[in-house]
This record gives sequence, structure tokens and C-alpha cells, in this order.
Amino acid sequence: MNGAIYYCPVDLTLSVVGGRWQGLIVWALRGGPKRFSELKRELVAVNDKMLSQTLKLLVEQGIVTRTDFQSVPPKVEYNLTENGRQLLVIFEKMEAWGTHYSEA
Amino acid sequence: MNGAIYYCPVDLTLSVVGGRWQGLIVWALRGGPKRFSELKRELVAVNDKMLSQTLKLLVEQGIVTRTDFQSVPPKVEYNLTENGRQLLVIFEKMEAWGTHYSEA
Repeated sequence: MNGAIYYCPVDLTLSVVGGRWQGLIVWALRGGPKRFSELKRELVAVNDKMLSQTLKLLVEQGIVTRTDFQSVPPKVEYNLTENGRQLLVIFEKMEAWGTHYSEA
Repeated sequence: MNGAIYYCPVDLTLSVVGGRWQGLIVWALRGGPKRFSELKRELVAVNDKMLSQTLKLLVEQGIVTRTDFQSVPPKVEYNLTENGRQLLVIFEKMEAWGTHYSEA
């Protein structure tokens, strides 16, 4: 992706979901589209710059769509693409592991 | 883990598998124990410092064991713990997604 070289399919997938904010944004969008402000509220520790950079990257990677409704006041929504939705099975396994691990 | 604060179980799991080298080392150990030199050969782009730091982190996180056979010449092997093995279902889903995505 973007001309990068990957060892294997796992490496490619890690480049999409491996970053903390990348992963958490994908996961936060599992229930449907969200606005920037909603994502920011949910991921309290993220700052504006990091959130917009990571969203831009996810759009470039074909994981997230950005829809600007051209309205006043401005309304922009982010949503998962079909490729993005297909990542959710990975996150469901991550949730199961993390739940088990944090109880251990 | 290590006193860090996580949003959710997915966030915790990302802290274990999210880093490129963390993830690739866990995946490289799926078939059984490996020596440092074997991991280094497999992950060609990793340097010694990064590999040993990441292995140390994975040991601290309870994902990988380090066994020093106290032999001459020295022999040290890395292997997945039970918690580490339970991560493999996540990687299998990553492999499937990455394979599909790279063909798309």
C-alpha cells in the first residue's frame, strides 16, 4: 500500500489497524458513521491534529470514507468502507482476547 | 498493563500486537520456538536493537518466554506463552484480510 513493502499479509494488515489511533477509530466506527467531534469525545486522549491525520491516512488507505454534507453549519461524517467493515472480525477477536487478558 | 490506562479491551490488545515488530514476532513464533538469529533472518528489516527491545517488551507483557539453555555456544530460544498463543486467532483473521486486500 502506498508503495510500501510488506513481509506478508499480516504485515499489510498491521499497517492499517496496528496504530493505536488507527485501530481505535476503526473500532469506534463499527456502529455506523460518526462526526469528528463524536470521535474526539470518544477517544478522549487524542488531540485534533492526531485525529485528523489518522482519519486522513485511513481515507487514503481505503478504510474510511469522509462525507462533507456542504451544509451550514458544516457537517462532515466518517464511515467505514466495505474493506473497513471486513476488518471488524479482527477487532472482535481483539476484544475477546483483551477482555480475557485484563481479567487474568 | 504496566500501569497504562486503556479505553477498552481492543486498546489493550493493540498495545500487545499493534506495533509492527511486536505483531510480526508473535506471528513468526506461531510454529514454535525460535532463536534470535532465526527471527532476525525472517524479519530482515529489523535491526538487533529493535528486535531485542521488542522481544524484551513481549516478555514483560507475558506474551513471549525467553529460555536461556546456559550452553556453549550460547543458545536462547523465544516462544509464545499460552496468552501469546491465544493471540494467533487475531493474526489468522489479519492474514485473511491482508490476503484479500492485496489481491483487490
